[in-house]
Amino acid sequence: MAPDHKAGDKKVGDKAPPGAGRSHMAREVAEIPVAAARFLELSRGKVLAAATALRAKDPALIATVARGSSDHACTYLKYAIELEAGVPVASVGPSVASIYKRKLKLAQAVCIGVSQSGRSPDIVELMRMAAEGGALTIAITNHEDGPMAAASAHGLPLRAGAEHSVAATKTFVISVLAGLALLAEWQEDDALRDAVAGLPDALAQAVALDWGPLSDRLARAHSAFVLGRGPGFAIASEAALKFKETSGVHAEAYSAAEVLHGPSAIVQAGFPVLALGVQDAALPQLVATVERLVAQGADVFLTGAEVGGATTLPSVPGLHPLVAPLVLIAGFYGFIEGLARRRGFDPDLPPHLRKVTETL
Amino acid sequence: MAPDHKAGDKKVGDKAPPGAGRSHMAREVAEIPVAAARFLELSRGKVLAAATALRAKDPALIATVARGSSDHACTYLKYAIELEAGVPVASVGPSVASIYKRKLKLAQAVCIGVSQSGRSPDIVELMRMAAEGGALTIAITNHEDGPMAAASAHGLPLRAGAEHSVAATKTFVISVLAGLALLAEWQEDDALRDAVAGLPDALAQAVALDWGPLSDRLARAHSAFVLGRGPGFAIASEAALKFKETSGVHAEAYSAAEVLHGPSAIVQAGFPVLALGVQDAALPQLVATVERLVAQGADVFLTGAEVGGATTLPSVPGLHPLVAPLVLIAGFYGFIEGLARRRGFDPDLPPHLRKVTETL
Repeated sequence: MAPDHKAGDKKVGDKAPPGAGRSHMAREVAEIPVAAARFLELSRGKVLAAATALRAKDPALIATVARGSSDHACTYLKYAIELEAGVPVASVGPSVASIYKRKLKLAQAVCIGVSQSGRSPDIVELMRMAAEGGALTIAITNHEDGPMAAASAHGLPLRAGAEHSVAATKTFVISVLAGLALLAEWQEDDALRDAVAGLPDALAQAVALDWGPLSDRLARAHSAFVLGRGPGFAIASEAALKFKETSGVHAEAYSAAEVLHGPSAIVQAGFPVLALGVQDAALPQLVATVERLVAQGADVFLTGAEVGGATTLPSVPGLHPLVAPLVLIAGFYGFIEGLARRRGFDPDLPPHLRKVTETL
Repeated sequence: MAPDHKAGDKKVGDKAPPGAGRSHMAREVAEIPVAAARFLELSRGKVLAAATALRAKDPALIATVARGSSDHACTYLKYAIELEAGVPVASVGPSVASIYKRKLKLAQAVCIGVSQSGRSPDIVELMRMAAEGGALTIAITNHEDGPMAAASAHGLPLRAGAEHSVAATKTFVISVLAGLALLAEWQEDDALRDAVAGLPDALAQAVALDWGPLSDRLARAHSAFVLGRGPGFAIASEAALKFKETSGVHAEAYSAAEVLHGPSAIVQAGFPVLALGVQDAALPQLVATVERLVAQGADVFLTGAEVGGATTLPSVPGLHPLVAPLVLIAGFYGFIEGLARRRGFDPDLPPHLRKVTETL
């Protein structure tokens, strides 16, 4: 599809020089490490207050409310919360309130809303409904004076600065970081606290990585699969969305377990697959899936492991398993911005899209 | 992809005659109405017993556990339960128990497992963990003597007969039907009870529908989107999986709300879209999304409404909104079986797949 569609004449080389001609998206990806450090410094009090309230509530479940990239941030936090705290997490579709006008029973829940703008009417409506029903509500947003924050008992302001690119990058990373910081304090887990404190450094390493071999392969691809498991599945979903949104590649995310149940039927010779592995308990199973797909003839690129017949991409080693996927997506963002330009798109202005989609 | 891949020499015409040469999948789709009537008759006592236990438990949440098509059945039941009972539903990844060895806090939960075979080790392990943690467990399976049923307090045996095709059809429909029957009794909702009782008739009408125009358009497609909202999103997910699994089409499901946030960037002139609308509160918004995609140049096919520039496919009218999407998927199954053969695939034997994937 890409060759038929050029968004404006802003096409530049794969490696743009800093400064003039650089996309908003490239600048915002480069800002991720600084934004991470700023959040940890400026929002520490808010994180501690929300964590204290969470511990007092001792919820039977966490409900999350979001759309698009922010919903992938919630998927990340779902796995992190279930694995770290053992509390089940339900993703609630904002349409339950906005379209179907149904009040959910959330008296024993903590409801976490994630929205960059904090002003999508359906998300605000669901947060308000949850609060009225007795839930503890926590807003994760870049606009701490917006209606979602106003409707919530607690807020974790991202303070990530303006995001001009339609494709969210730094606000995705800081939203997940905010949720992980909250989780570490709620559970009073020193290992996770240390891992979160180390994120600005790890993210700085990640955004400097070079995934050139993947860019060469995908310069003219139509379809691809992106695989992950646990929190890595959330990252795979986010990467697949960015492939579609910025680069016209029909990439779809799958759990490394699910992909062998049916979706792998379309994996023929040369089908591109990106497997996002990190050093965690799921890595051996991800490797086994990659071996199966290589045997089917797929062109597999992976992180975190070496597999014969597949290409290993660089990643930041030695990270806590609950932060490693987040660091990985920062590296991916740098890669996808370059791929978008290489395929003739303007990464800041995906075709047909606006920044705030006010879903009803 | 399809032209490169012919599974055996079993290619027959688009409309196979009954009897010899007919695929298992075609036979199993044709059996759906009878299987529905049989479930309602034979499993009524089990449904009532589970509903009584559910009402006594008065859960703070429902957790669901499944993979593949069965997980789409759970997504359907999530929307149906949230809209009908107002209880939040969390989909729990079986890997939480099997890979990450984490015990979830499910004492206030009802845990519903859905599995045709009832013997995937990771799902059995999670059901056992949930029961040990105090959850009320309910198994929906076609193998009532299998390990998942043995690990659960209640069971809703599908009694759908053997399913030989790798691609699940009748067991998907009867799994959702079982969950809806349970929901109607739990909530003692006469309108939903009547709608469930009418399903055998409605399903018989559905499997006789002809979606020829869509088959003509997709005979040579690479990619497609399938859209729905609420329970219709679950059906869209199931349809997208079947497109990949049986017909080599890279179809991806999106909520009719989400698709405009980023994925629609790949919708160029002639991109095929199937919008699965039913007469419910979300239909006006689905229609608005279809109008946007038609304006972008997409080739849109839809059910449940008329939109200028799009092709309306026949569906069964006048159904309760919580059963209408289920009836719709039965019609889709008949269509996709024919499309698979038309594209040169054997619908019973998708490339690279086995019937029971024993995920670890």
